[in-house]
Amino acid sequence: KGDNLIEVTPVTEFVGTAIGDTVGLVIANLDRHLHEKMGLDPKYRSVGIVSARTGAGPHIMAADEAVKATNTEIALIELARDTKGGAGHGSIIVFAAEDVSDARRAVEVTLKEIDRTFGDVYTCDAGHIELHYTARASLALEKAFKAPLGKSFGIIVGAPAAVGLLMADTALKTANVEIVSYASPDKGTAHSNEIIVSITGDSGAVRQSVIAAREVGLNILRSMGQNPVSVTKPNI
Amino acid sequence: KGDNLIEVTPVTEFVGTAIGDTVGLVIANLDRHLHEKMGLDPKYRSVGIVSARTGAGPHIMAADEAVKATNTEIALIELARDTKGGAGHGSIIVFAAEDVSDARRAVEVTLKEIDRTFGDVYTCDAGHIELHYTARASLALEKAFKAPLGKSFGIIVGAPAAVGLLMADTALKTANVEIVSYASPDKGTAHSNEIIVSITGDSGAVRQSVIAAREVGLNILRSMGQNPVSVTKPNI
Amino acid sequence: KGDNLIEVTPVTEFVGTAIGDTVGLVIANLDRHLHEKMGLDPKYRSVGIVSARTGAGPHIMAADEAVKATNTEIALIELARDTKGGAGHGSIIVFAAEDVSDARRAVEVTLKEIDRTFGDVYTCDAGHIELHYTARASLALEKAFKAPLGKSFGIIVGAPAAVGLLMADTALKTANVEIVSYASPDKGTAHSNEIIVSITGDSGAVRQSVIAAREVGLNILRSMGQNPVSVTKPNI
Repeated sequence: KGDNLIEVTPVTEFVGTAIGDTVGLVIANLDRHLHEKMGLDPKYRSVGIVSARTGAGPHIMAADEAVKATNTEIALIELARDTKGGAGHGSIIVFAAEDVSDARRAVEVTLKEIDRTFGDVYTCDAGHIELHYTARASLALEKAFKAPLGKSFGIIVGAPAAVGLLMADTALKTANVEIVSYASPDKGTAHSNEIIVSITGDSGAVRQSVIAAREVGLNILRSMGQNPVSVTKPNI
Repeated sequence: KGDNLIEVTPVTEFVGTAIGDTVGLVIANLDRHLHEKMGLDPKYRSVGIVSARTGAGPHIMAADEAVKATNTEIALIELARDTKGGAGHGSIIVFAAEDVSDARRAVEVTLKEIDRTFGDVYTCDAGHIELHYTARASLALEKAFKAPLGKSFGIIVGAPAAVGLLMADTALKTANVEIVSYASPDKGTAHSNEIIVSITGDSGAVRQSVIAAREVGLNILRSMGQNPVSVTKPNI
Repeated sequence: KGDNLIEVTPVTEFVGTAIGDTVGLVIANLDRHLHEKMGLDPKYRSVGIVSARTGAGPHIMAADEAVKATNTEIALIELARDTKGGAGHGSIIVFAAEDVSDARRAVEVTLKEIDRTFGDVYTCDAGHIELHYTARASLALEKAFKAPLGKSFGIIVGAPAAVGLLMADTALKTANVEIVSYASPDKGTAHSNEIIVSITGDSGAVRQSVIAAREVGLNILRSMGQNPVSVTKPNI
């Protein structure tokens, strides 16, 4: 485990940190060969980057708010099989902008939002559940889950995978919502031990479904003898 | 680490737990949209689900006994890259049945068998080895490894991967057996640090090969300065 | 965690160990069915195997020296998503030789070199960075990264992934070097939480770029409040 830092040489590209070993960086003028290898649109010279060991859902939700609030696009979202031995993902999200100040702003908004979006992630030794809700999906959710832009959108995650399946089943039976995406260890995840289902529909219906999924997920983990707790502070 | 549970609201879908953070669930009437997304045959309304953070071999072996003993089919087996920081897999296994009581029974049998099938999993800090043997392979082993139905079948696993390779080589040279499947970090696993080889042949030959693989695997781990121990109680 | 060993039956195939839970093995006459399943050239009867829970870069660099020093070829390099809960890889490297003494020699050289090649791996709780440099790339680096044979070659790794991206950007802007390969959680890695960029060019330029990448990587990890330390002893 790293000790406290001894000496830090300021790096202009460093923006800040957040929970989940999250780091926010900005590159004013990304090397054009790297640009090409990453498949980015050449018109975007500046990139903002948010990357974490733990968390993909909370980071994508936070990035979705950032892209609404800034003049940026989502260039890339990739999930790693990480969580430091947990059952889920780490992530890297790249914002592209014509101007570096926009890229920086997107990273700052994301880092600020992560504290909130981690609130509906509940963890315990045996696994975790994760809920996300927004009244209006934007570009990060579209990129990551093919969310319909501007529509109400919910994400339901459970680990071990069976927990996510039961949560999704519950959500779909609770209110009139539609599945947008389904991901499991074999497809759509980085072989994480999760089932991740996203839903859309009427705003009230999505919220009600997400809450029902949360309740059944918490109760299954408790039935396993666990005490799942929020990473920060529940919001939904 | 989760504390002891504070309060549990009974969930009708909860069947039970087993070692490896294993949970058993049942859904009497799986939502038909989820059904579709998972690619399940519509005639099976009910599903039984067994899911774990640690273990795939032991769970598939246990499910193989369950499918023999019940009126169910194996709808899906997926492996996650998990083991809570270990070198292997977690898993999700879905039984499909026309009747929910059959699905529940399959989950119950699986949970009960897992204690036995974990007996020939030996773990230590540097890695693990895993042996499985059945005189008669059934539908779970066919689904997961293309095992020939009704034939004698053995599974040999070693981590780090080199250990599995030497174990497999030893097994194949010990008796007159044939390779059924070969999986390594790049193909056939969820990028786990294992080589997994399955074999078939005459019942005595398969058993003898599995035992020889176990001995060389244990001795290599011991040569690494480790003391591999059975998760429960050895059977083979 | 494994206790000290109780009893070891000598196994002729065991060559030795190294840090990272690395084990070195040799098989004088690999079973021909396994041979086939692994896709190896039938002319090579003997294989040397190096496999680890932690590390891929250090092992490939060490194997590159071994293949220069012995009459062997690199038959196979595969990366597992491992590191015992860390953000990176484990690995398996197979040397092929006509003669078992050559295979054994390659494993011995690799095990000896790993201590050195781990020197430029710096780890901390939040992630790690990794630097590698050689004046003359050989067959292991060609196999793993498509390195141009005989040319100066550098590898830059950072985790969480954003750190690797900034390190690569810095390297490319520092001196006149070219990207050879780019790998990220979605492609080219086993879904590890890393960005891995390899470079070639003039020997001095590659070295200078790798050093610049190291400095910015260490400073970002320190800005995250961490104290990254070398696994053994820095060399570059």
